[in-house]
Amino acid sequence: MIQKLIDRIQDTGAPIVVGLDPKLDYIPDEVKNRCFEDKGRNLEGAAEAFWQFNKEIIDSIYDIVPAVKPQIAMYEELGIQGLFTFKKTVDYARQKGLIVIGDIKRGDIGSTSLSYAQGHLGGVKIGDELFKGFDEDFATVNPYLGSDGVKPFIDVCNSFDKGIFVLVKTSNPSSGEFQDRLVEGRPLYELVGEQVEKWGLDSMDGSYSNVGAVVGATYPEMGKILRDIMPHAYILVPGYGAQGGKGKDLVHFFNSDGLGAIVNSSRGIIAAWKSENYKASADGKVGEAARAAALDMKKDIEEALSGK
Amino acid sequence: MIQKLIDRIQDTGAPIVVGLDPKLDYIPDEVKNRCFEDKGRNLEGAAEAFWQFNKEIIDSIYDIVPAVKPQIAMYEELGIQGLFTFKKTVDYARQKGLIVIGDIKRGDIGSTSLSYAQGHLGGVKIGDELFKGFDEDFATVNPYLGSDGVKPFIDVCNSFDKGIFVLVKTSNPSSGEFQDRLVEGRPLYELVGEQVEKWGLDSMDGSYSNVGAVVGATYPEMGKILRDIMPHAYILVPGYGAQGGKGKDLVHFFNSDGLGAIVNSSRGIIAAWKSENYKASADGKVGEAARAAALDMKKDIEEALSGK
Repeated sequence: MIQKLIDRIQDTGAPIVVGLDPKLDYIPDEVKNRCFEDKGRNLEGAAEAFWQFNKEIIDSIYDIVPAVKPQIAMYEELGIQGLFTFKKTVDYARQKGLIVIGDIKRGDIGSTSLSYAQGHLGGVKIGDELFKGFDEDFATVNPYLGSDGVKPFIDVCNSFDKGIFVLVKTSNPSSGEFQDRLVEGRPLYELVGEQVEKWGLDSMDGSYSNVGAVVGATYPEMGKILRDIMPHAYILVPGYGAQGGKGKDLVHFFNSDGLGAIVNSSRGIIAAWKSENYKASADGKVGEAARAAALDMKKDIEEALSGK
Repeated sequence: MIQKLIDRIQDTGAPIVVGLDPKLDYIPDEVKNRCFEDKGRNLEGAAEAFWQFNKEIIDSIYDIVPAVKPQIAMYEELGIQGLFTFKKTVDYARQKGLIVIGDIKRGDIGSTSLSYAQGHLGGVKIGDELFKGFDEDFATVNPYLGSDGVKPFIDVCNSFDKGIFVLVKTSNPSSGEFQDRLVEGRPLYELVGEQVEKWGLDSMDGSYSNVGAVVGATYPEMGKILRDIMPHAYILVPGYGAQGGKGKDLVHFFNSDGLGAIVNSSRGIIAAWKSENYKASADGKVGEAARAAALDMKKDIEEALSGK
């Protein structure tokens, strides 16, 4: 699966993933009101508004970026109705040729992790037939439970040609509270990074592994070290844009082949229509502003990498 | 909320939570076939079988145990249909007076954790009205992202009188891979335990906090130390029974007031009808065997605690 992602990155020239993390605040009143009138001012109406919003964004960016990353929490907040929109979004994005990274951050003891892996990346056998609950291409995974919580995901990746990104160093301010603690003189995230590299050798696909890592753009120096520790892992980099990460911070996450990282932006793209930068030019249009913001991000990363 | 759980534990005399982690293998063919005929041999039929199975168990144990703990992964594996059964199970168990611990092990950066917390424990405002996606009493939370991933859950607990159990030392074989690593001479799980105690002081409810901890029955010596580190935290103890933990292993998880811990058993109760111990006496009846197994577990814990 990682090779498919790399192919799409090379086709588009954009190592970018658009975070589909809708909030009611990001959606124009006109869209919301239409959905509330149609489905009710309730969870169903809100979930419909998420769907309309996502669809406009997908339709506007599918030809210029390789991937989208829906954050399942935003949908789970709306219960069943929200998860139905999550599923529709995943399926629609894949139909449009986008790679879909389910940002689910799951992880549990072995047999339970297997259920998550089968639910999101694989499938479940009922009688002789295989059924798929959700069907993302990649999922994010939390490593706190250790190898037996991660390996079922890798097994499913191998059976179904899928991939995962394991949380190594997250982008949030308090990520250091446990992740940076020194174990024999080295931060915990380095040990997790070493495991990611090891786990990944069981699921190679070309020069890279289907087992990638999440490392926040907000910690570029750590990204540099982790890049060396995990030579075969693709790094999913959140925290660019609204969380504070800039193009120049991203340089160290890439390998010398220009590959090895894919950078996420959520709010900076999907809510671009509300920002001062795009308000006037996109005339309040969600999709046009998202496309313009994605192209600007592509340029920002290109410039940063060419100056490397 | 923790006081409500304590009251229920004292009423029933059983510091026990029944893990509602259905698998198709645990469900009698008769039930499965009826559901497949009714809804189809597909995700919907499987989800209906989960629901029928759960309902029989809830109806058989609601008066003798205080709480149930549905593991959301089992339901998520079946996609939307499975999650619909998760929701029905949560709502039905609460109607029957049971406390419901959603075993969801969520955790993300702050704003995203807030969405999970609102989706599972709180609610989301649409217009002036509050809607609840799911509505458990407690949720389990993964601490890897640090305080800003946990605090939104605590805020929601305070607003909605709910609780959480934070993963400290999990029951699985490889939990030590990261959790046991020494930080300044002390295992990481102790540092997480200290944070749980600190976080908990912001959400006290009687003598205990709404912020509890998960510590596996399979690590009783660590449980003893963690009991001291977190005097105000209720400990949710998985790993009893099928995972290898025994009554005598549980003693150290309790405080001298006889409180402070609640022990989970999943397979040992819900699949008791298939085990040698209950096969004959319960005559293949899921509910009767579950009730007998829960009563035996209560006795096992009572004996262990009285010998303390």
